[in-house]
Amino acid sequence: MASYTPPLRDMRFVLHEVLDVVAALKELPPHAELDADTINAVLEEGGKFAAEVLQPLNAVGDREGCRLDQVSHEVTPPAGFKEAYAQYVQGGWPALSCDPAYGGQGLPHTVNQCFYEMLNSANQAWTMYPGLTHGAYECLHAHGTADQKAMYLPKLTSGEWTGTMCLTEPHCGTDLGLLRTKAEPQADGSYRITGGKIFISSGEHNLASNIIHLVLARLPDAPSGSKGISLFVVPKFLVNADGTLGQRNGIFCSGLEHKMGIHGNATCQMTLDGAVGTLVGEPHRGLAAMFVMMNAARLGVGMQSLGLTEVAYQNAVTYAKDRRQMRSLSGPKHPDQPADTIIVHPDVRRMLLTARAYAEAGRALCVHTALLIDQELHHPDEEVRKAAADEVALLTPIVKAFITDNAWKATSECMQVYGGHGYIAEWGMEQYVRDARINMIYEGTNTIQSLDLLGRKVLGDNGKKLKAFGRRIAEFVEQEGVSEDMQEFVNPLADLGDKVTKLTTELGMKGFGNADEVGAAAVDYLRVCGHLVFAYLFARMARVALDKQGSGDPFYTAKLATARFYFAKLLPETAMLIRSARSGVKPLMEMDEALF
Amino acid sequence: MASYTPPLRDMRFVLHEVLDVVAALKELPPHAELDADTINAVLEEGGKFAAEVLQPLNAVGDREGCRLDQVSHEVTPPAGFKEAYAQYVQGGWPALSCDPAYGGQGLPHTVNQCFYEMLNSANQAWTMYPGLTHGAYECLHAHGTADQKAMYLPKLTSGEWTGTMCLTEPHCGTDLGLLRTKAEPQADGSYRITGGKIFISSGEHNLASNIIHLVLARLPDAPSGSKGISLFVVPKFLVNADGTLGQRNGIFCSGLEHKMGIHGNATCQMTLDGAVGTLVGEPHRGLAAMFVMMNAARLGVGMQSLGLTEVAYQNAVTYAKDRRQMRSLSGPKHPDQPADTIIVHPDVRRMLLTARAYAEAGRALCVHTALLIDQELHHPDEEVRKAAADEVALLTPIVKAFITDNAWKATSECMQVYGGHGYIAEWGMEQYVRDARINMIYEGTNTIQSLDLLGRKVLGDNGKKLKAFGRRIAEFVEQEGVSEDMQEFVNPLADLGDKVTKLTTELGMKGFGNADEVGAAAVDYLRVCGHLVFAYLFARMARVALDKQGSGDPFYTAKLATARFYFAKLLPETAMLIRSARSGVKPLMEMDEALF
Repeated sequence: MASYTPPLRDMRFVLHEVLDVVAALKELPPHAELDADTINAVLEEGGKFAAEVLQPLNAVGDREGCRLDQVSHEVTPPAGFKEAYAQYVQGGWPALSCDPAYGGQGLPHTVNQCFYEMLNSANQAWTMYPGLTHGAYECLHAHGTADQKAMYLPKLTSGEWTGTMCLTEPHCGTDLGLLRTKAEPQADGSYRITGGKIFISSGEHNLASNIIHLVLARLPDAPSGSKGISLFVVPKFLVNADGTLGQRNGIFCSGLEHKMGIHGNATCQMTLDGAVGTLVGEPHRGLAAMFVMMNAARLGVGMQSLGLTEVAYQNAVTYAKDRRQMRSLSGPKHPDQPADTIIVHPDVRRMLLTARAYAEAGRALCVHTALLIDQELHHPDEEVRKAAADEVALLTPIVKAFITDNAWKATSECMQVYGGHGYIAEWGMEQYVRDARINMIYEGTNTIQSLDLLGRKVLGDNGKKLKAFGRRIAEFVEQEGVSEDMQEFVNPLADLGDKVTKLTTELGMKGFGNADEVGAAAVDYLRVCGHLVFAYLFARMARVALDKQGSGDPFYTAKLATARFYFAKLLPETAMLIRSARSGVKPLMEMDEALF
Repeated sequence: MASYTPPLRDMRFVLHEVLDVVAALKELPPHAELDADTINAVLEEGGKFAAEVLQPLNAVGDREGCRLDQVSHEVTPPAGFKEAYAQYVQGGWPALSCDPAYGGQGLPHTVNQCFYEMLNSANQAWTMYPGLTHGAYECLHAHGTADQKAMYLPKLTSGEWTGTMCLTEPHCGTDLGLLRTKAEPQADGSYRITGGKIFISSGEHNLASNIIHLVLARLPDAPSGSKGISLFVVPKFLVNADGTLGQRNGIFCSGLEHKMGIHGNATCQMTLDGAVGTLVGEPHRGLAAMFVMMNAARLGVGMQSLGLTEVAYQNAVTYAKDRRQMRSLSGPKHPDQPADTIIVHPDVRRMLLTARAYAEAGRALCVHTALLIDQELHHPDEEVRKAAADEVALLTPIVKAFITDNAWKATSECMQVYGGHGYIAEWGMEQYVRDARINMIYEGTNTIQSLDLLGRKVLGDNGKKLKAFGRRIAEFVEQEGVSEDMQEFVNPLADLGDKVTKLTTELGMKGFGNADEVGAAAVDYLRVCGHLVFAYLFARMARVALDKQGSGDPFYTAKLATARFYFAKLLPETAMLIRSARSGVKPLMEMDEALF
């Protein structure tokens, strides 16, 4: 029963009116010729694919799930998934942001991210098949040998083959240093890999003729821990020298997980039994190579939750404008009807606006970060590349954890708008909540993201990256501080900026004395930083909306109203978070383990 | 894979050490002879039933769900549910707190509530079958005619028959004034009832030989709106004068809902086709009569979420003590092992302690409220009865909404402790999250609860009930304000008390000008009040723990540590809530409906 309309106007607002991405992309040689019309046309077509092909498969995918044939080890995804994937390949979508050297269309990440938002709104479970493929593409593009690139990249670019990342084992997820899968070197330079992996998204299916697994394993002489892990590429079917498919390789799906959500994606237990693979990158340096893929994947997870927030919002609004229950407390708004529509009730609006505000700021953050990635990859000035890379490093855990936590809140609020109907599968709202829940866990739990932010990205370089981002904000505050109409946005932004500086210094000093202080405050700290970033982006969006509201286009009025809602109702969370972050490690560690 | 141990020690702490319920119950004639040993023995036996009979059926109930035979309209609950119910009846458990005049054991609500916490921890979906029965019992006990009582109460007491409440229709849930089901008076004094109901929990099943439906419908001469609704009792099988079962009545299950959770409970669409019923209470006064049942049900929903919080906590602790990932940031805690158990990580403890604190305070609140109900029913002094009734009225929406919102947070945190394994059905954690979600919706959404609290219970009597509760707190603060060791609890409690007083006055004045101001602030306000109640109860628990920690029993050390965690990490939410509540209606209503 759920529906989806690609938010093209909102995307154009962020891309062109707020971030002016075309001007920024013009400085990057591969994108110098790209214009706004092309971007808009690609997104319009992409939106059609998402809304018309993928969205109708979302509920059926949830209902049917995937089936494993225990004899053949083949997995059948839900009805329609294979046909949709064929249309996706035929449309050339897998190649959107791939390297033209391998058949790609060479469009910037910035465009690809917006495309992925729409795919995820329409069908997160389906989107994980091409999503992981793109991750495998990026990892091999960055670390593969010339032979590996020639063998795999064209087919991953075209979408004829898909990819996976095989990291987790039953006893280790967060702590990959514990992994046990073994790789034995062979005389021909290849490796025979044996072990068991779990939670492998898109691990087995019939959408593509081959599946290219990127597998972490240990060489026989590997040191223990995370510095003894190597990365291998292990195709489902071996590839002959002429590019045709050879023998079935010894990597099989041995079980499917029954999960809370994303039922349409095959989450596989994979058994490797002497599977043939080749080494990617240096021996024992596999984790570093895999991190290329994981950083992209973390941004991708943020995009998944942004997509779910947007689609949950759209549906809840439709319901709230249609469903009639009770009268407005301030007097009937539709006296000719037996009751008012529920959108007249302030708390229904609070729920809707929570999702709307998180979607709008989340979109701005994701596009901003994607543009930085394009700059990191292609800017001719090394210093700009370095600065962009630093900012991407800082923002990645925020994109992943803040947006996914927000989506959990937002999809739940949107479900609540429906009352009892929200709990019923038929309406599709509870699926968004269940699907959204995994995003807080995979690709590094949100706790891990927060430790990455506070421990590594902020304190790890004495606040250098954070200060650079702070300068962005300070410049904006200085510039807008004189505008009467921006006071309501600039003042709380400046105030929160000061508080973050103070809190960071405090936590740095406390962490110096006891590293557990970092772990105790990190989750609160990440959300404070997330709000700082959102407040900054909302203030920038408000600036544009104020400039243009004279145009008479109510779009800008709505932008301002959403920004005001954000500052009034969501930003105050920082008051709680800062207090909690400052309460330190003692309330957490005081109780003896035995007393739990 | 989940397990459950009845928290008997924690219950005894609340019952006897904090609230001294035996002393309070002694003042009530029906319970004057009750002693602590009897209460403890009943709970121990009840806990065994929950842990040994119901808990093993929880996962299978979720997996199998209920089946409807479209021809016979019979519903089959999951395997084992019927047998467990037979054991429940055989053990005399349905009669626990029922009136001895109808075969009940006459134990106080206080004991029954603790029993229900355990049933819900073990299996919420199953517990809804007897839970709704008890609601129907209470409604008929309060409003039934002598004939109705004689016909139905003994069988509901024994559990031979079960009960339901049939309120919701497709177009009305919150707004029952819109309901359309019709009741036509017959010559013999009975009524023929026709219409359609949805979301009827335990609406049809094979656990009992008859199902007694309490149905809201309109008489032909009924005024429109909520003042034209009457209540009827409509048995599945008509009952002959001698008490034997007669003809099948015209009330059938016409469909089962597919839901996010509580799969083991049959959520039925019910079709009434000239079903024979008799009037309960006055014509057109059905909503008032039904509210007896709904208030009890609201407390019951709080109990459901308390049960889920407790069981999620227990399992997450077991996992956190067993699972090894990473090293403690402050240095290895188990250097002889390849990694530390995850309970050494501060954020894992934050997640566990969040659930633990919410369970402990939630239990104290539920028992405190149950004791007030016993006083309301049976205290010889009318003034005490009235004061108790007022406090129950004030606390009911807090029990319902605050505890269920907290359980949603807590079960999700406990699931997060498991990382990826939390998302997998096999571990049972994601079921707790899905089951917990309905509790925020049914028996009046949590928004409705917040309007009931702020609009009706607080502002509706000019703060009289709230002030009475405030005096409780003020007395405690005065008494403990001189104790050095209580400062850390008493100071923030007193501070929050002052803030609630101020906020209430502010909202009252704003609401006077614009009733939507009440709707805009109510949800934040309810959570602030919830924290005030929890802070008060934690302070009382801390007082007892401080007095007894010299005993050497580490139980009291743990209580103090949990209280400190609550004040440091959870209470600060009030800083956000108060700011948000004060931001008023404008940020919510500013945007034109068309712009959503």
